[in-house]
Amino acid sequence: PEWQLIELDGEEQLKRVFKFSNFAKALAFTNTIGELAEAEGHHPAILLEWGKVTVRWWTHKIGGLHKNDFIMAARTDAAFGG
Amino acid sequence: PEWQLIELDGEEQLKRVFKFSNFAKALAFTNTIGELAEAEGHHPAILLEWGKVTVRWWTHKIGGLHKNDFIMAARTDAAFGG
Repeated sequence: PEWQLIELDGEEQLKRVFKFSNFAKALAFTNTIGELAEAEGHHPAILLEWGKVTVRWWTHKIGGLHKNDFIMAARTDAAFGG
Repeated sequence: PEWQLIELDGEEQLKRVFKFSNFAKALAFTNTIGELAEAEGHHPAILLEWGKVTVRWWTHKIGGLHKNDFIMAARTDAAFGG
């Protein structure tokens, strides 16, 4: 529900900001999503800041969104909630 | 030498892009800088993408650059080279 549809450099992307109480927790979440990305061979952009991680999913090859991006967004949510 | 002086949201920042041959190496560098940040109690923005990490240092409290940001930029370079 928290994902925004944005356009960046002419490509549609899914973007969501996840909030944390400190930097270490944000870094840990970055690693969780990084490991998920490696396992799936599909890689988002992850902006790590103090208490905040912004994740963007899209498929560069097609210049926009593929079904897989929505699946990865849902799995990102699950990793945050779990 | 590779750091750019930029202005974002009205605040001067130091920004540099570091390139890697894959995602795993970019994630590892993100962790290295994250650990450095935690150790110093000063936190940058780190944008992690496939084969690329963009680091931005600035001091939010003063709305711009402090001597410490230049020191952290140099230490980021050392971590990349080391």
